[in-house]
Amino acid sequence: MISIEELKQISVVSPSRIVMLVIDGLGGLPNPETNKTELESAHTPHLDQLAAWGVCGLIDPVSPGITPGSGPGHLALFGYDPFKFSIGRGVLEALGIGFELQETDVAARGNFCTIDGQGLITDRRAGRISTDICAELCSLLEKIELKGVQLFVLPVREHRFLFVVRGKNLSAEVSDTDPQKTGVIPNSASALHPEAKQTADLVNEFVGKAREVLAGRHPANMILLRGFSKLPEIPSMSEIYKLRPAAIARYPMYKGLAKLVGMKIFDIDNVVEDGIRILADRYHEHDFFYIHAKESDSAGEDGDFYRKVQAIEKVDSALPLLLRLKPDVLVVTGDHSTPALFRGHSWHPVPILLFSQWCRPDRTKEFSESACIHGGLGRLSAVDIMPLAMANALKLNKYGA
Amino acid sequence: MISIEELKQISVVSPSRIVMLVIDGLGGLPNPETNKTELESAHTPHLDQLAAWGVCGLIDPVSPGITPGSGPGHLALFGYDPFKFSIGRGVLEALGIGFELQETDVAARGNFCTIDGQGLITDRRAGRISTDICAELCSLLEKIELKGVQLFVLPVREHRFLFVVRGKNLSAEVSDTDPQKTGVIPNSASALHPEAKQTADLVNEFVGKAREVLAGRHPANMILLRGFSKLPEIPSMSEIYKLRPAAIARYPMYKGLAKLVGMKIFDIDNVVEDGIRILADRYHEHDFFYIHAKESDSAGEDGDFYRKVQAIEKVDSALPLLLRLKPDVLVVTGDHSTPALFRGHSWHPVPILLFSQWCRPDRTKEFSESACIHGGLGRLSAVDIMPLAMANALKLNKYGA
Repeated sequence: MISIEELKQISVVSPSRIVMLVIDGLGGLPNPETNKTELESAHTPHLDQLAAWGVCGLIDPVSPGITPGSGPGHLALFGYDPFKFSIGRGVLEALGIGFELQETDVAARGNFCTIDGQGLITDRRAGRISTDICAELCSLLEKIELKGVQLFVLPVREHRFLFVVRGKNLSAEVSDTDPQKTGVIPNSASALHPEAKQTADLVNEFVGKAREVLAGRHPANMILLRGFSKLPEIPSMSEIYKLRPAAIARYPMYKGLAKLVGMKIFDIDNVVEDGIRILADRYHEHDFFYIHAKESDSAGEDGDFYRKVQAIEKVDSALPLLLRLKPDVLVVTGDHSTPALFRGHSWHPVPILLFSQWCRPDRTKEFSESACIHGGLGRLSAVDIMPLAMANALKLNKYGA
Repeated sequence: MISIEELKQISVVSPSRIVMLVIDGLGGLPNPETNKTELESAHTPHLDQLAAWGVCGLIDPVSPGITPGSGPGHLALFGYDPFKFSIGRGVLEALGIGFELQETDVAARGNFCTIDGQGLITDRRAGRISTDICAELCSLLEKIELKGVQLFVLPVREHRFLFVVRGKNLSAEVSDTDPQKTGVIPNSASALHPEAKQTADLVNEFVGKAREVLAGRHPANMILLRGFSKLPEIPSMSEIYKLRPAAIARYPMYKGLAKLVGMKIFDIDNVVEDGIRILADRYHEHDFFYIHAKESDSAGEDGDFYRKVQAIEKVDSALPLLLRLKPDVLVVTGDHSTPALFRGHSWHPVPILLFSQWCRPDRTKEFSESACIHGGLGRLSAVDIMPLAMANALKLNKYGA
């Protein structure tokens, strides 16, 4: 695989534009009644036309057999090796609720949990308390005072919350307090590196005070923290590709991931058409657009095969608006598979199509898992998509003399 | 590629079971008369049915164009990058004859050879003396005494033998005495690292005494040693995958390789059916089974196209016994190709099929080289098979948040 340093050397600015349309959780598994996947069941005349004009394939988001979280899945699509650039769980929670992390902040994922009279954990999720109760308890915890630092405790969903500590000389090299099992007491946070001692002490002080605050709030009478992390150091897409990249997404997680790699963010209201309208409005301000369509993934996670089919059809029917812009390079793919039958992210490879004046069309006439097996892109790693898109946009010089 | 450390982080224990059936030397080349390979010529209704139900592909055991020895071929199947974990030739010879190496032993591959009056090598294989003569000479050499260490000299086949030195502070960083050409004198062993000086001296003393012992035994009047090595440090499959792995194999080499990665070994008597019967008996004691079928490779090495066809058919006819167990994941593949026309291991990719409840079936209806080209697994590296099998067994958590 070509390195980021090498890409920097050969990338050039040009007037061409790349659009990367990410249909979240695109890949599926066949419905036992019809033997067709969600994408194969959907009526997608425009995607099929693009498949016929362009070149298709199947991507492994991270590595064969590996089910990616949203972080690694998206980083790979943006051209970053997900084994080299990793996003901590705390940071991901912050991105997910749109919390603006500062460079020196340390974030962690929090769970409200239940402990018994002896302090042993009996339920790591506090009976999945409602998000309302979570919000109320978070505002209590946020009032805890720790010397020299500022605290943020924000509800995520049900028993989940975000913990952020802001101050000087903080380190994320702190061990989890969440033992990830019941019947034991929560761990103390400890410094994984000498310079993290102060942060570990602060965390332990916070947890001790939180326990007092929550004493009468059974089942949410304790907290567990894990995934202490800081914003990762990631070279921006402008640095690597000399692009002016923009993201069009609704959900905080994806906006956050796009922001991490230096994209300008545009909000949408859950409708692909709105996103494409914004793209059209801003078409001359950027030369790389990432558009994120979420509904297919949510339907897959809910196990709703036909809602996923409809979500894909909705994307398809919005495409003419996009094609009218005649982007020089159009890539359509997903960040991972979310088969409705599997009700979650999976490891199955994801269909991809790439259309440009300079692609070498294959004989694939249909955008589907089965058809993409025979596509001219073959089976490729997601991290190779950006170099391919850049090449098709004539934005990469020759490598080596 | 995902690293072993990362796999350790995401692997989980579950009740599902994985069976990996390795048909040694499976891949072939077409018979010029029929244009069909050995696998394509064989009547394999069960393998074809599995191909239709499951997902197929072609694997590169090590890397495209690279012909693997049995060591790298098998390590890759077990999920170990063969470029990172290497097995020295001496160790491989020991595994091949079932010699129980201890951790501190140093092993080397030995050849009886012929030297002339001036000590120049005239035949590196001593006219391929019979295995009986080899055994007789080995027992003479084993009587040589070296201070402070124990020696083992064991016949392998024809002119080949195993040399093992057992003692304290021995190092394998010793250069070959085999110059791998004729017309020159054998090399002295030299230390490739300062701490190997004692071992190199012992080797040279042994070779000098061996020359005296063999003086009248023309054509086997001298020895050559190469591939000094110790047992490699390899994390076990239990450490990486949290599996309780078992191997069912007849030949010492394969039992040895399986033992290296921590499998429990079950012997079989050269019949696939026996192996599957043992598997059935032990089905509840393990959650990973490697079964090795050797005959296809031996027939390929002998250039016997139809014997290889029959060996494959024999495996096929034993399959119903295996399918009755309903393994959660069944992988059928080979460690490399051994085309009968080629009379040896080759670099050609090897058909693979994977069947599980969670695989995404492709349109491949037949288990053959030509059909697997169009399979849904595409072309993959053998080292990716274990993550895929683990994913299909639902034994891998999501990677990254």
